Amino acid sequence: MSQRRSLAVAAFAVAALLCPATAATAKRDPMDKPNVIMLFVDDLGYGDLGFNGHPTTHTPNIDKLAWGGKVLSSWYSGCPVCSGSRAALMTGRQFNRVGVPGVFGPDVTTGLPLNETTIANQVKKAGYATAIMGKWHLGQRAMFLPAARGFDYYLGIPYSDDMGSARATGCGSEPDKPAGRINIEDNTLMYEELGFYNAATQGAGTARGGGDPGAGLLPLVFQDAANTTHPTIVLEQPLDFTYLAHKYNEYVTGFIAKHAAAPFFLYMPFSHVHTTAGDQPDEQYAGCSFINTTKRGRFGDALAEADWIVGNVVAEVKSNNISGNTLYLFTGDNGPWMVKGKSGGSEGLLTGVTAGYWNTGKGSTWEGGMHEAGFAHWEGQIEPMSRSSEVVSSMDVFPTVSKLAGVALPTDRVYDGRDMSAILLDSTGTAKSLHEFLFFYGGCSANGPSAVRYGAYKAYWCTGPGLGGCAGCNKKQYPTTPLLFNLWEDPSEAYPLTPADPNATAAFKPGPDIAPVLEAIAKAQADEIATFTKGHLVSPANLPAEKQPDGSYKYAICCDRSKGCDCDGKPRSGADKPQGPWFANLDVRDDL
Amino acid sequence: MSQRRSLAVAAFAVAALLCPATAATAKRDPMDKPNVIMLFVDDLGYGDLGFNGHPTTHTPNIDKLAWGGKVLSSWYSGCPVCSGSRAALMTGRQFNRVGVPGVFGPDVTTGLPLNETTIANQVKKAGYATAIMGKWHLGQRAMFLPAARGFDYYLGIPYSDDMGSARATGCGSEPDKPAGRINIEDNTLMYEELGFYNAATQGAGTARGGGDPGAGLLPLVFQDAANTTHPTIVLEQPLDFTYLAHKYNEYVTGFIAKHAAAPFFLYMPFSHVHTTAGDQPDEQYAGCSFINTTKRGRFGDALAEADWIVGNVVAEVKSNNISGNTLYLFTGDNGPWMVKGKSGGSEGLLTGVTAGYWNTGKGSTWEGGMHEAGFAHWEGQIEPMSRSSEVVSSMDVFPTVSKLAGVALPTDRVYDGRDMSAILLDSTGTAKSLHEFLFFYGGCSANGPSAVRYGAYKAYWCTGPGLGGCAGCNKKQYPTTPLLFNLWEDPSEAYPLTPADPNATAAFKPGPDIAPVLEAIAKAQADEIATFTKGHLVSPANLPAEKQPDGSYKYAICCDRSKGCDCDGKPRSGADKPQGPWFANLDVRDDL
Repeated sequence: MSQRRSLAVAAFAVAALLCPATAATAKRDPMDKPNVIMLFVDDLGYGDLGFNGHPTTHTPNIDKLAWGGKVLSSWYSGCPVCSGSRAALMTGRQFNRVGVPGVFGPDVTTGLPLNETTIANQVKKAGYATAIMGKWHLGQRAMFLPAARGFDYYLGIPYSDDMGSARATGCGSEPDKPAGRINIEDNTLMYEELGFYNAATQGAGTARGGGDPGAGLLPLVFQDAANTTHPTIVLEQPLDFTYLAHKYNEYVTGFIAKHAAAPFFLYMPFSHVHTTAGDQPDEQYAGCSFINTTKRGRFGDALAEADWIVGNVVAEVKSNNISGNTLYLFTGDNGPWMVKGKSGGSEGLLTGVTAGYWNTGKGSTWEGGMHEAGFAHWEGQIEPMSRSSEVVSSMDVFPTVSKLAGVALPTDRVYDGRDMSAILLDSTGTAKSLHEFLFFYGGCSANGPSAVRYGAYKAYWCTGPGLGGCAGCNKKQYPTTPLLFNLWEDPSEAYPLTPADPNATAAFKPGPDIAPVLEAIAKAQADEIATFTKGHLVSPANLPAEKQPDGSYKYAICCDRSKGCDCDGKPRSGADKPQGPWFANLDVRDDL
Repeated sequence: MSQRRSLAVAAFAVAALLCPATAATAKRDPMDKPNVIMLFVDDLGYGDLGFNGHPTTHTPNIDKLAWGGKVLSSWYSGCPVCSGSRAALMTGRQFNRVGVPGVFGPDVTTGLPLNETTIANQVKKAGYATAIMGKWHLGQRAMFLPAARGFDYYLGIPYSDDMGSARATGCGSEPDKPAGRINIEDNTLMYEELGFYNAATQGAGTARGGGDPGAGLLPLVFQDAANTTHPTIVLEQPLDFTYLAHKYNEYVTGFIAKHAAAPFFLYMPFSHVHTTAGDQPDEQYAGCSFINTTKRGRFGDALAEADWIVGNVVAEVKSNNISGNTLYLFTGDNGPWMVKGKSGGSEGLLTGVTAGYWNTGKGSTWEGGMHEAGFAHWEGQIEPMSRSSEVVSSMDVFPTVSKLAGVALPTDRVYDGRDMSAILLDSTGTAKSLHEFLFFYGGCSANGPSAVRYGAYKAYWCTGPGLGGCAGCNKKQYPTTPLLFNLWEDPSEAYPLTPADPNATAAFKPGPDIAPVLEAIAKAQADEIATFTKGHLVSPANLPAEKQPDGSYKYAICCDRSKGCDCDGKPRSGADKPQGPWFANLDVRDDL
């Protein structure tokens, strides 16, 4: 055993995480603290999956999970971009009520405000084991990372997979996947088995992030909150996309196996299928088991790889005999990144016909930007092969999971999410949405909601250009009459019920069919704004960043600043880990 | 019993059709002459069903049938409009190879050429019972109607449900549906039970069809081929949409019950969800059980009604214990009628982004016009919850059903369809399409195919405007370089691989990635044209039409010309049926 192999083994008590449960699992009452597996795919379009009609997507595991459960065909994201969407999911509150901006950069000083309660915080009150795999994106400083926000374990890229350079080792003679589980006790062994030390194919990476080299090279981070000495290690920097999915897979299946007897909350925000930085092929990544395996090109390969992990998770749940105790929820964080072309995904039928040249995917509050593919699956509790078109939101996950875990909601704040468990458990098709009004923020308005869903209707006070923008055009405002659609009949937003040209609104007189609708949303808008106090980001002064020779502070994740944060993909952990002040500050478990 | 009630009862030996089977059904070998139920919805868009992602469509029975079988996500129609599509389905051949135009009018002199062999003709050779419900649209003269083309029974509107005026009795105090099966032995009773004789709500109908009043009023026709005296009766003219679905339902479930012990072929070309004539509400129809029941308005109501019939068919098959002996196939005849707005359906993600202002639904060879929702379901034989994106065509139904029935294909003609049974029965995901090239005709070209599908690619030699056309614009031709897409990666036709502007093609030099594709399709186009001999319509001179006082001939269906073909919805049958020369000519069983 090399010296590096022997390092750090004892210090990180993560072995238990990945060992199978030893005792036969006693049957639990299905309704008593069910496990929850929250599947959350990055930048997934409504039209990207088989169960929503994409002709060539190959996602058999996701599709079967959807078909065997209840497709939730009117599931809305909490925000049309990444960080806001995750803040809304984690807190059950509008992202700007929480005070999170749309997107955090890789060297931001702040994160999800520390006075916010996450779902993980909630279920910990009920004794759940908690883990997160993938993209967190609510702050990369240790105080904001998952181990400080209620999660026992974390493995992932803390932000978007295009926010830095990475490597793709290549598939040459390496095995398609590890023969057994990844042994995080012995990182070096893992890397050697996977052939990670291929210097010839390693890219050096490109610095970005305003001069902080750590922000230019994607890190792969592991956290074990119970390890008070070293709760956080940088496993790789720059990370290697080639076997990232295999690590995700071994991590989540290992977590399930270990915690099969106890209730658990497993949050799986896939870094797939967000486009990658320009140094990755086709702006999508997939490991050796999936590259060039699908008809749909690299996007399809990436999606198939995510689907493979889902299949393994389902198999692990089944093999542990806990399918009846496990609720799966599935959705995406926001719509597809349309300006990325074939690498950006498909909005499906949510084309926003009236939008004209405006981008109707990610970044906009048009349906394509916020209406997500969604479903719930729970063997024995949720009717198989069912569908509901009742409006639900990612913000509903917080109150729904809290309810199922038997944990009361905090009473000192406004919750925008609603408990959707009645819709999930309904087998009569009669359960109704608890969102009389569901507001959408971002994209165009800083002074109130941009749009609202009200029964069949969606009304826009303004419409934004979405990511990619449009040259020389301003925000479209509808000051006199909101732009109105009946989405039940017109999900493609092709037939506006009010003038689509804002210049024409002065002469428009709504008829008796829609005048009451416009009145109701005007009143609701005012009521909503009255309940609204912007949150504020927390960046405590007592947590020093790494002061640089030029006097500036660095907040990006860095394996070793003496190497410009480029550790050639090698792990830095235990005695081998960097000893600088930034890394030391990762030990912040007590700050929670 | 009224005099009318007693009429015609004995003459029409249809009672047996609708009585339940009396003996317990002996278990048949599933692969020995399976029953085939061909579900075929009119003007259904790819994006109109739940299983393809429409958010608010309520089609639980169709969705469950799809999910419990194999979704065929690359199913193509044989023609972008009605008659051609049905000719291709019925014969397994390109519609213009057969010689059928896109659409037959309600007073056309001709129909599917009599020298063509239909699927019904094929399976009759293997002893199948055969029936058709709904829209035939391959000629309305008796010699062209289903009873003369291999079908034992027919109940339906012989062409599109907008090709004439109709009635909608209204839902007042009438029962939602008949208490028992409709007793076609006793038409009067049926009508009285359903409240058909409500003079106050009957519309008079508007004549159309070039002066032939029969072409202006939709008829409901029943045929029993075994009745050599009166094989055809006009049940209603104008027909009443209010309870049409209930009649369809009782007819098809009665047929299944009666023929459960024998192999049968049941062809169900729904008259739903084609838009209706302007005198029907919202250009869609649904009976009292479904009107205003769905979120999606009248289109959704109509679709839900069709779905209800499907559910009853599945239940009937199950209750007769023949699910394992019954193959269901499902698709639509062509894409949605986009210019009809919300009444026309949704093309889903097949938006034809590059098409710009061109209509990409019904009438065009763009994906939206020809790429259909499709699936196959066969308990015990087809893997549940599976999908295949291999290219199949409605033209494949003929050779596939022939194969399963054990009947050889005629050898004296070209078949464009391919046996797709290997794809249906494959549980490994390895079965491949037998269409190396699949050609699309219509929309723009009279001298060869308009487009071709070749593996991942679709190439257009020209693109047409689709139904609705465009004012002042000509056909788009691509004489130098066909317009090319990779549909595996780009089903929305958003990223052309060759210039989308035909004026730019002169300067275009295809690179090594697509040059071989363009070469292959150029050669295939020439080969295809060489095999092509246009068919010719048959309109035998020995079948007189009804000569009118002005010397012209009338070919439209008419209950009673002495009443201008308006029988107030009353039946004309038996002694009560019209005795004019046209009706007498319906007794043409021997002409088959």
